[in-house]
Amino acid sequence: MAPSASVTAALIIIGNEVLSGRTHDKNLPYIAEKLNGVGVRLTEARVIPDIPDIIIRTVRELSANFTYVFTTGGIGPTHDDITADCVAEAMGVSIDIDPEALRRLEIHYQNSGLEINEARLRMARIPAGATLIDNPISAAPGFRIGNVHVMAGVPKIMQAMLDGILPTLKGGRPMISITLRCGLPEGRIAEGLGALAKAYPDVDFGSYPAWTKTAFQVSLVVRGDDPDRVEHAAQALEGLIQDLGDRAERITASAPTASV
Amino acid sequence: MAPSASVTAALIIIGNEVLSGRTHDKNLPYIAEKLNGVGVRLTEARVIPDIPDIIIRTVRELSANFTYVFTTGGIGPTHDDITADCVAEAMGVSIDIDPEALRRLEIHYQNSGLEINEARLRMARIPAGATLIDNPISAAPGFRIGNVHVMAGVPKIMQAMLDGILPTLKGGRPMISITLRCGLPEGRIAEGLGALAKAYPDVDFGSYPAWTKTAFQVSLVVRGDDPDRVEHAAQALEGLIQDLGDRAERITASAPTASV
Repeated sequence: MAPSASVTAALIIIGNEVLSGRTHDKNLPYIAEKLNGVGVRLTEARVIPDIPDIIIRTVRELSANFTYVFTTGGIGPTHDDITADCVAEAMGVSIDIDPEALRRLEIHYQNSGLEINEARLRMARIPAGATLIDNPISAAPGFRIGNVHVMAGVPKIMQAMLDGILPTLKGGRPMISITLRCGLPEGRIAEGLGALAKAYPDVDFGSYPAWTKTAFQVSLVVRGDDPDRVEHAAQALEGLIQDLGDRAERITASAPTASV
Repeated sequence: MAPSASVTAALIIIGNEVLSGRTHDKNLPYIAEKLNGVGVRLTEARVIPDIPDIIIRTVRELSANFTYVFTTGGIGPTHDDITADCVAEAMGVSIDIDPEALRRLEIHYQNSGLEINEARLRMARIPAGATLIDNPISAAPGFRIGNVHVMAGVPKIMQAMLDGILPTLKGGRPMISITLRCGLPEGRIAEGLGALAKAYPDVDFGSYPAWTKTAFQVSLVVRGDDPDRVEHAAQALEGLIQDLGDRAERITASAPTASV
């Protein structure tokens, strides 16, 4: 079981293309690691289709239950880009062309030699009271309203938007983790690992088996937000592995991702 | 907006390791495509942590709202493998060692020269009234109870379990899709695409921009469960692209994945 998280986040991945299997989401792990770097714990993620009722209901529910909500996808110029309108409705505000968003799009399209048509104007629609999130790649901004952050789905654009968001978040202590790899089967180590999990209720012990081409291995991940406790727990786990006749290899001692 | 789906599925991905960003889920797109091959539409997916209350609540909610529910993760021998117990509680039944599951584990461990200890016995715990799902890789079975299918998280094992499940599902018509690629910017094609989406309410039109190293491209995906309508809509879209001065390239005309 995970240690209780004080500052939590939920991610809403919006798009039929992810649910059909056509597009493989790469944003979740990136967002998870970046958020953790500023002490915000990704605690739930949902992948939902481009259906207004479902988007509205999901935004409302998660906005009420998590410190922060992030959405990806559905903010382009086509008919299936309905995220901004749905978030406005979920948050109970109106939506219209935002002058600053329009100005950024006008400059972008002028520089690209393209005209702003009705479809592109849709990307300047921003809910009333929202703050713009910069898009240094393709100009059309994301936005934050309440605790909901609306970002693009294209990874390069999402990552640039997230860079702008991270300094605005008020996080707690980042989770740090130590991974130990050994060749013991999970079923051999399970009893001792369970005892350690009980002895360190503030630390999260995960066990992840894997088969390489030549051998069975298990990765044991020790996570928590107190570096001393995590180190102490990892050493206890190394002792357990030694007692069972194997030797643990520390394969990472990942520092939290630095805030941008 | 997606065409209304008659036979729906929800996927619950259980595991702190996915929410931390450590493990990149590869099961969602695989499951989505396989389900579609038997006419079952993946309509929502959730990634949730190893916390009993959240697992129980999520299973209950999705079991009530979708034709089928699938879970991945949390059915191994360690303390964080709590899926079976949580699903039993969600479905309101007891859980205990299942004689057939035990028999399979005994044979497996006998063949491997390993002893069955208390931790490994946990993998034979099956909710009352459940049907076992074969695990040809590592013996420990998944199970189906009601409309909920509990599978392993390790992709190789999950895939083998899903092979056994697919013939038992009663699906509708599979979605088929045609993808057209062109070099028009999304904002140029958006108006005509929106008009097509209105003219073909039973067909789903998606627009997905991408940047290759050398050029901008957009993939337009036409999906539906009526092959004639999908073909008709794709031809109308090809006409639109031509009218806008470009040429559409059909990059896939994916047949549904065959049922195993």
